[in-house]
Amino acid sequence: MKKVVTFGEIMLRLAPPGYERFSQCVALGATYGGGEANVAVSLANYGLDAAFVTKLPKHDIGQCAVNSLRRYGVDTSKIVRGGDRVGIYFLEKGSNQRASKVIYDRASSAIATACAADFDWNAILEGVGWFHFTGITPALGQGVADICLDALKACKEKGITVSCDLNYRKNLWSKAEAKETMSRLMPYVNVCIANEEDASDVFGITSAGTDVTSGHLNHDGYKSVADQLVQKFGFKYVAITLRESHSANHNDWSAMLYDGKDAYFSKKYAIRDIVDRVGGGDSFGGGLIYSLISGKDLQSALEFAVAASCLKHKIEGDFNLVSVAEVTNLLGGDGSGRVQR
Amino acid sequence: MKKVVTFGEIMLRLAPPGYERFSQCVALGATYGGGEANVAVSLANYGLDAAFVTKLPKHDIGQCAVNSLRRYGVDTSKIVRGGDRVGIYFLEKGSNQRASKVIYDRASSAIATACAADFDWNAILEGVGWFHFTGITPALGQGVADICLDALKACKEKGITVSCDLNYRKNLWSKAEAKETMSRLMPYVNVCIANEEDASDVFGITSAGTDVTSGHLNHDGYKSVADQLVQKFGFKYVAITLRESHSANHNDWSAMLYDGKDAYFSKKYAIRDIVDRVGGGDSFGGGLIYSLISGKDLQSALEFAVAASCLKHKIEGDFNLVSVAEVTNLLGGDGSGRVQR
Amino acid sequence: MKKVVTFGEIMLRLAPPGYERFSQCVALGATYGGGEANVAVSLANYGLDAAFVTKLPKHDIGQCAVNSLRRYGVDTSKIVRGGDRVGIYFLEKGSNQRASKVIYDRASSAIATACAADFDWNAILEGVGWFHFTGITPALGQGVADICLDALKACKEKGITVSCDLNYRKNLWSKAEAKETMSRLMPYVNVCIANEEDASDVFGITSAGTDVTSGHLNHDGYKSVADQLVQKFGFKYVAITLRESHSANHNDWSAMLYDGKDAYFSKKYAIRDIVDRVGGGDSFGGGLIYSLISGKDLQSALEFAVAASCLKHKIEGDFNLVSVAEVTNLLGGDGSGRVQR
Amino acid sequence: MKKVVTFGEIMLRLAPPGYERFSQCVALGATYGGGEANVAVSLANYGLDAAFVTKLPKHDIGQCAVNSLRRYGVDTSKIVRGGDRVGIYFLEKGSNQRASKVIYDRASSAIATACAADFDWNAILEGVGWFHFTGITPALGQGVADICLDALKACKEKGITVSCDLNYRKNLWSKAEAKETMSRLMPYVNVCIANEEDASDVFGITSAGTDVTSGHLNHDGYKSVADQLVQKFGFKYVAITLRESHSANHNDWSAMLYDGKDAYFSKKYAIRDIVDRVGGGDSFGGGLIYSLISGKDLQSALEFAVAASCLKHKIEGDFNLVSVAEVTNLLGGDGSGRVQR
Amino acid sequence: MKKVVTFGEIMLRLAPPGYERFSQCVALGATYGGGEANVAVSLANYGLDAAFVTKLPKHDIGQCAVNSLRRYGVDTSKIVRGGDRVGIYFLEKGSNQRASKVIYDRASSAIATACAADFDWNAILEGVGWFHFTGITPALGQGVADICLDALKACKEKGITVSCDLNYRKNLWSKAEAKETMSRLMPYVNVCIANEEDASDVFGITSAGTDVTSGHLNHDGYKSVADQLVQKFGFKYVAITLRESHSANHNDWSAMLYDGKDAYFSKKYAIRDIVDRVGGGDSFGGGLIYSLISGKDLQSALEFAVAASCLKHKIEGDFNLVSVAEVTNLLGGDGSGRVQR
Amino acid sequence: MKKVVTFGEIMLRLAPPGYERFSQCVALGATYGGGEANVAVSLANYGLDAAFVTKLPKHDIGQCAVNSLRRYGVDTSKIVRGGDRVGIYFLEKGSNQRASKVIYDRASSAIATACAADFDWNAILEGVGWFHFTGITPALGQGVADICLDALKACKEKGITVSCDLNYRKNLWSKAEAKETMSRLMPYVNVCIANEEDASDVFGITSAGTDVTSGHLNHDGYKSVADQLVQKFGFKYVAITLRESHSANHNDWSAMLYDGKDAYFSKKYAIRDIVDRVGGGDSFGGGLIYSLISGKDLQSALEFAVAASCLKHKIEGDFNLVSVAEVTNLLGGDGSGRVQR
Repeated sequence: MKKVVTFGEIMLRLAPPGYERFSQCVALGATYGGGEANVAVSLANYGLDAAFVTKLPKHDIGQCAVNSLRRYGVDTSKIVRGGDRVGIYFLEKGSNQRASKVIYDRASSAIATACAADFDWNAILEGVGWFHFTGITPALGQGVADICLDALKACKEKGITVSCDLNYRKNLWSKAEAKETMSRLMPYVNVCIANEEDASDVFGITSAGTDVTSGHLNHDGYKSVADQLVQKFGFKYVAITLRESHSANHNDWSAMLYDGKDAYFSKKYAIRDIVDRVGGGDSFGGGLIYSLISGKDLQSALEFAVAASCLKHKIEGDFNLVSVAEVTNLLGGDGSGRVQR
Repeated sequence: MKKVVTFGEIMLRLAPPGYERFSQCVALGATYGGGEANVAVSLANYGLDAAFVTKLPKHDIGQCAVNSLRRYGVDTSKIVRGGDRVGIYFLEKGSNQRASKVIYDRASSAIATACAADFDWNAILEGVGWFHFTGITPALGQGVADICLDALKACKEKGITVSCDLNYRKNLWSKAEAKETMSRLMPYVNVCIANEEDASDVFGITSAGTDVTSGHLNHDGYKSVADQLVQKFGFKYVAITLRESHSANHNDWSAMLYDGKDAYFSKKYAIRDIVDRVGGGDSFGGGLIYSLISGKDLQSALEFAVAASCLKHKIEGDFNLVSVAEVTNLLGGDGSGRVQR
Repeated sequence: MKKVVTFGEIMLRLAPPGYERFSQCVALGATYGGGEANVAVSLANYGLDAAFVTKLPKHDIGQCAVNSLRRYGVDTSKIVRGGDRVGIYFLEKGSNQRASKVIYDRASSAIATACAADFDWNAILEGVGWFHFTGITPALGQGVADICLDALKACKEKGITVSCDLNYRKNLWSKAEAKETMSRLMPYVNVCIANEEDASDVFGITSAGTDVTSGHLNHDGYKSVADQLVQKFGFKYVAITLRESHSANHNDWSAMLYDGKDAYFSKKYAIRDIVDRVGGGDSFGGGLIYSLISGKDLQSALEFAVAASCLKHKIEGDFNLVSVAEVTNLLGGDGSGRVQR
Repeated sequence: MKKVVTFGEIMLRLAPPGYERFSQCVALGATYGGGEANVAVSLANYGLDAAFVTKLPKHDIGQCAVNSLRRYGVDTSKIVRGGDRVGIYFLEKGSNQRASKVIYDRASSAIATACAADFDWNAILEGVGWFHFTGITPALGQGVADICLDALKACKEKGITVSCDLNYRKNLWSKAEAKETMSRLMPYVNVCIANEEDASDVFGITSAGTDVTSGHLNHDGYKSVADQLVQKFGFKYVAITLRESHSANHNDWSAMLYDGKDAYFSKKYAIRDIVDRVGGGDSFGGGLIYSLISGKDLQSALEFAVAASCLKHKIEGDFNLVSVAEVTNLLGGDGSGRVQR
Repeated sequence: MKKVVTFGEIMLRLAPPGYERFSQCVALGATYGGGEANVAVSLANYGLDAAFVTKLPKHDIGQCAVNSLRRYGVDTSKIVRGGDRVGIYFLEKGSNQRASKVIYDRASSAIATACAADFDWNAILEGVGWFHFTGITPALGQGVADICLDALKACKEKGITVSCDLNYRKNLWSKAEAKETMSRLMPYVNVCIANEEDASDVFGITSAGTDVTSGHLNHDGYKSVADQLVQKFGFKYVAITLRESHSANHNDWSAMLYDGKDAYFSKKYAIRDIVDRVGGGDSFGGGLIYSLISGKDLQSALEFAVAASCLKHKIEGDFNLVSVAEVTNLLGGDGSGRVQR
Repeated sequence: MKKVVTFGEIMLRLAPPGYERFSQCVALGATYGGGEANVAVSLANYGLDAAFVTKLPKHDIGQCAVNSLRRYGVDTSKIVRGGDRVGIYFLEKGSNQRASKVIYDRASSAIATACAADFDWNAILEGVGWFHFTGITPALGQGVADICLDALKACKEKGITVSCDLNYRKNLWSKAEAKETMSRLMPYVNVCIANEEDASDVFGITSAGTDVTSGHLNHDGYKSVADQLVQKFGFKYVAITLRESHSANHNDWSAMLYDGKDAYFSKKYAIRDIVDRVGGGDSFGGGLIYSLISGKDLQSALEFAVAASCLKHKIEGDFNLVSVAEVTNLLGGDGSGRVQR
């Protein structure tokens, strides 16, 4: 099957154990993650040949980030080594009415300060069939945005399918900046992935009648959003994840896939007792890319992606450590949680 | 009160902390458990004189298994020491839609390779009033099945009451093998304990209209199953636990007790926020044996057993570490969870 | 703003990790807490100048108790050092039908054996505007009750507002003892805080139609209780917290504030997936005192206090480690638990 | 072989992990230990039938102390249940120039407040061949000292051998008090165990030329001390442990055994990289009692006891968790530390 | 006694547990430290009124750094809040031939990017008697170097004693840069503290015949270095710590104090089984400043400082958590490590 | 550089934390290791293209073993998946006079029960330059011994250099069995690695005057042993590691390399404060193979291998997680343990 490359930042994630607040803990769980890296791990878990591309310092912390990916079978041979620091994010897990909290310390990371010469896209994309990035990558800085554009142009030349998860991060750039830069990149994208708010935040495209904080979703509205995106950028597919957040432990989760004509809606999962919702969107992206590459029909592809990301919410860390068999089992209707002996 | 002996295997249980997956953890919680050992611990906690009989290697890991039982007051003086290994099971705790997962590594354990000469049942059963085993024990191998038969014959001679939890394990033997062996042992059994599926799996006895994975129970059907068991093997009592599994964290839990004439149904507990459901059935068995030995009427005996096993779901590990007072408190209706100061 | 002094005992709290029972654990989480100390931490977190007054041994465990308060900005300069031991309480966290369990080992603590000469209230209360204690403090012994009275008289002289949380503890004194002592102290109190049962336990004042264990509340009844308290002791305000305990993990939580004329009722929060409910009442007290000192109107003051204590249930340990901003965020309606990035 | 009973206090031991100071830790390792309990565990490990007698509260912490002994095979059936609290000691492990630190919180424990009627020595000592206590037990209070005397008188009547480890604790009583009480008890003792300082602290018996803090030992002097003890109290044997403390991690360790005529000196072990030296003296006592009961000659008995206690220094906790085979292996000269596969 | 202010950076220190390498660990111990903060904690532990001045972000990680100081009684009221990030250093503890490893990630920290207007030295130094900083502070950037100069000028005006630990860090600046900047600051310094290499690294001042890596020290040479420093900058005192590093676990440690005329040499401690040597030099500085403020004679001041820093090597973390009594005990010659009960 | 393949078993290693005994721990550290896997990790760490070949079950525990190797860059694509269980060894870390203890539970592992058809050596050895195995592999069973022979024949055909570490394990086979089987395999081996005892245990070849447990080594004797090995089997090189075991924490470590003519002896390292000595011999093998492949002269190759294995003793787990730079640094003489900043 097609080799996939994802491109972005992988950060050191530092999180107090359990439900401790930052001010209580004496140790921080140290794992690694980031939107595109998370997708690469999903794909490797599903058996695809997936490579993650970034820049990481030569020191031991940089190496730990590499190891965290190799461990799950991601090809790290294209990672550029250099720069000074690994980006960091601090994560405090919330519960119920107390929200989870993220503090970013990612400025000046190796990838954020990388230059175009660091990446030889012709070589990197040799033999590759699918390229994935998220809106976080160009948001890291003008330099990285330009590197993205280089990559996308090379993809176009080589006929590589491109997917992008809009993933707007307000602490990285303003809506205006996002719109300007993303508008330049979108024409190269074939599959656009977004959550309920991204289209509005990045492109000002809204669906009437949906209040994100209210927890109520308007299906027609989302189809309209997807259609506007297709009209504007010519995407082949637009996927939108639909999260209804009842509390930090309890979300409803579903998604829509639109092919420019029909909107497919998935089953909705009531996700209680959430273990870790960071990376939920990325796990959807990973499931969708896997499904499309492996030739599933659109409804099946969507259902696989949603079931995969449902399971992610029950797994610690950014990475969605589930196999195709485990996703398929949930799809098959066994959400009873009976012990598998 | 009557001394009780339970006979079977105790395993080393290796489990990642919290909700970590096997592939994430760097340490495995190490406790010990197994169907019959769990029952022995329950009985010792309730103040009975309870002995557990098995075979364990002389090395330190075997000794740790012994210590795990002594700690809670189980008589381990009848355990035979020898053989090469302690059986192991790996347990990954699930959450909600992600099911818990058990990987067994119990082949060739000391008890599975024990021979008849290892156990002098006349001596072991001296002064004993109740003998308990589960369908797992004979499933360990033909040799152990024969040892079971030896034990049961000795029980018959001495007038010892015998209880058996059918506990079918598909990874240990086929349904045909189970039926053949269990059918030889059942005539010696007075009290038969089973879950919703055991009677069907082992003896092909079914209740119409019950779909285990659907979560809906058919009370009449279970009475019919129990009656068929009584007709076939002459059991004095048949107890069936009724689990409705909504997710890995949320089960409904109740049971039925049948005396050949009347079927008693217990209160149903909604068990949310499950801490550990392994050993749930064993804790029911322990509660039932205690209740019957201590002369409770059938409805009370059943309610005690169900309340005891309800509490087990909130306790880490295989063992049900609750006292009679704690079970009685729940029976008395205080499930409000107010802090006991 | 006014400096606040709280007076009482701070204990070493020893708790098994997670949901382990006492009989399972090999280490005990070691934190510090106590009714009045918890209030002082809340106030310091909200930016007030808050001092905690007690007596603690000179040895390292006494020092650790001091450090636990300094860490969160509480003024510990008025703590008297001496005596032999730090009071201890052992806490086992329950889940669902299994209740949490507290074992006290606080007899003969430094504060319980303190004498009047240890505290120079004129100096301690210099520049102070608010004094807070709970019914636990006088319950520690006749000596401490007398010290309380000394403090209250000094407060009266200096025009310091006094609040008291009735906090009846049956293991410290009988209802008769509580009534006798508390009746002597109440005339000095301006703001009385209580839970559903305190008024009945301490003063025999009841509200018809409310069964604490049933989980149903009778609002009119509570207003009547508050009014009786006002009539009897001349309180300016009476606040009553209303907990409906569905299980160890699931409580409903609200409160009433009465000013001798009108009863204000707060929003009711459904608190699921409780992380730690110890200190829930204290966090209400802290929120209320902060609100009244900072001049909020009564409804707002009550809502702040209830929202603050709602959040406490999601935080490990006795202390309510939340900021004004976090409480305000919940008040603003965002209980959706979305990740705060 | 002879059944042994030891009598004294078992405490909850609370220790920061590793080399953390009290002021740094957030959890305290929770184990149990005490002079006489430690000896009982040693004897049970060596295969003797050993019972520990004390009084412990009925609550869960008391039960945990019982469990800690049962786990290693100690007979706990003679433990009296009642009283309010389990004695506690806090232990901070030192390293090199930083000494380990113990803070006791044992006043008013169940055993310290026990009364004579709690213990029926005739029943307890039925079938017993050896009785052991230490100077700590009578130091707990006059009541316990009287109970000791009761026990010793019963031993005399039944012809039970009595051993006593002087174990002077300056924080429990003055030298004058110790001398007065111990002088009343010693006439019933057959085997006296002491460290370098005990004879001087309790009875004012000294050996010229030995400075404990200097690390130099004077063998003749210790023989003289032992002889004075024999002359005064008629002991059959006197054993003195000789610790040369170079640092918290590095001690030399040996001992002397005197039979009223000859003094036997053991091999001296250089103990570096000490893991835990608490219980070192108790492990010597356990080794010596085992050796004498099992009929070893005096030199061999002494060497076994010293080797056993050498190994204790490499084991966490109060209990000396070694087998006869492991001690014998060290005696056989294999201190090379090669991996035992 | 005189109030002391120290000025510099406090970092988040992230360290794998025990001897794990970065590539092995799944959690990082999270403490806080930095040269001048460490000195402030030492002084607060010794009972002085010590304030630490720096700039820290307003977010939770910044607050944690504040809390880490408050906990030990350091006055944090002068800390400026603002900026983006807390500096970080990663620490891997070595053993024997494997050296400890530090990876700095401190660029762009709040203090490194602070500006002169952030600090009102007139207000900060009100009532202060001693000011301390290290060569790390000006090395953070030209801006901070200028702020240092502002502070020093204010000190001069107010007659405040100034101490500086040269503390050359090659990863922060070149020797040439250090020389240039430090030469401008030194004229304001009264007490200069250095290790064996600092004088050479910063000012090119060397002592003949000393090879740092060889572990051999030349006392006369160090006196000559100190004298050259006095001649050049007019210091009142120069203190030089002398570390002989035999392995990561085993150092010899002593120091010299020079008053422009006489050189005092301390006792030399053989420090084996090192627990944590980071902050060793800072603990010397803290001990020296305390000693000089409290009026000890020079030999005693030096001995106190060396003993204090000897103990630091046995304490986890940057901070030297020892009391005056504990240092005095070691000074009194008790390095035997006997348990303090 | 040449691609290397190593072939053998990788086991799950279960070890109590720190110095806890098996009977104390509640969790077991879970890592993976085995002689040939350890060598593969060393080589990957040094930058070589190293593959490990074995057979592992398809279940999650088998996958964890794969992940443990991928994480450090070992090529796992040639690992055969199937069979029932992963071999296990339990490791209790000793200290000083208390030896470390290994309990094997490796019978019936997937590799021990593998058959010849599982491995297509022509494909596996494609492009390979060096093949390594140890005496443990053929000791797993006759089937594996035959698979080894297949591999060696293929190596011969392809001109692949073969190294073998004799690694005699008495619990796997008798000396007679070892001699018989190993004598058939040795003619295919070019580089023979052994410890002090292997040549004697496997082939009865001894050196006069060396007593392994005494800690004294006889250099001439070892040269004689190496020469006898060369004479017998035609090895190109024989390397012998020389461990002098003073205690579990303190070994001296050196080695000899013999080329059939000259014997080269390495520097001897005094290794104190050992962190983990399991895998010490394997780390020597890894260092030697790397050195020979990279063309070092014999003395340099030997020194690199010895320095590498010296560092291994300071690293937790089986794998030697050091880089070429770190080994070179020690070779360069910097064993001072100074912090590397």
